[in-house]
Amino acid sequence: MKFCSQCGSPSIIFAIPEGDDRERYQCSDCEIVFYQNPRVIVGCIVHHQDKVLLCRRAIQPRYGFWTIPCGFLENGESCEEGAIRETFEEAGAKANIMDLYCVYDVIHVNQVYLIYRAEFQGDVGFESGIESLETQLVDIEEIPWDDLAFSSIRFALECFQQDVSEGQGFGLHKKAYNKNLDPLRN
Amino acid sequence: MKFCSQCGSPSIIFAIPEGDDRERYQCSDCEIVFYQNPRVIVGCIVHHQDKVLLCRRAIQPRYGFWTIPCGFLENGESCEEGAIRETFEEAGAKANIMDLYCVYDVIHVNQVYLIYRAEFQGDVGFESGIESLETQLVDIEEIPWDDLAFSSIRFALECFQQDVSEGQGFGLHKKAYNKNLDPLRN
Repeated sequence: MKFCSQCGSPSIIFAIPEGDDRERYQCSDCEIVFYQNPRVIVGCIVHHQDKVLLCRRAIQPRYGFWTIPCGFLENGESCEEGAIRETFEEAGAKANIMDLYCVYDVIHVNQVYLIYRAEFQGDVGFESGIESLETQLVDIEEIPWDDLAFSSIRFALECFQQDVSEGQGFGLHKKAYNKNLDPLRN
Repeated sequence: MKFCSQCGSPSIIFAIPEGDDRERYQCSDCEIVFYQNPRVIVGCIVHHQDKVLLCRRAIQPRYGFWTIPCGFLENGESCEEGAIRETFEEAGAKANIMDLYCVYDVIHVNQVYLIYRAEFQGDVGFESGIESLETQLVDIEEIPWDDLAFSSIRFALECFQQDVSEGQGFGLHKKAYNKNLDPLRN
């Protein structure tokens, strides 16, 4: 941030505003404060007969690596709507949300993940969206663990694989953040 | 947004960027796109012997109305850390998170709520934070329903009151968003 988006001044400082307790970007001319907050990532684990829908990324970062369909929640949509939209955009699949499945933070990139468990709406159908090199329905025993795009995706898929193998149903999975214990990095 | 925060140009347009599908603020000089996304509200229902911790707001909007302690998640903290921080800032109470309790969207203001159920860490203790006129441990039969600050707070408290009255424990509550059915307005 180099210029004030309100008054155009180049006098941007990064300092603790009066009455606040943390550093923010602010304009020292018009005194407006620019707040920056975490963003929400929404997505789906779409599954069908012990298979899960995965996409290989056609965009950076992590071009060519595998992920579940997910992305930034947009203004004006609910988390479920966003998860359905991302699934359609990235995997060409119409998702029918079954339940909220994973909630976790990825602190280092200021993201909160809300991942839903979903089935195909109607017949099984998918294709590669514009952001995907390919889309596949992958057996959970054949998930490409070494070629996943992000550790945050690994977490959701590990929860799913474990739930399927235990056969006790699907609960809500949360990853308690702890600075010392293997935080999710991206 | 009147000026580009990257190059200082006043040539800000609100239009669909190439390859995108929705309108964004962007600079027609340096072509940077400014994304705006929903923010996360975190907070706690701190309860003790069928009483719940409520604060009366000392700030706008809804000055003088009651709320549970909650506020914007900040960069660099987890949702649980944020909920604990807000509870301390607004109610002077040290919260011990028990579980994620409510997850819901407030579409019209682009907010996602993550409300946790919590107990006092150690002895019962609270006071009014700088953003609160007063803080009270309120019996769930005496919640000031007509004087709550936001319908989003009402939702979380209604879930809690119902769970206590039914005596079957506390699950996770989600409010499915539906444009036609009583959306949460703020």
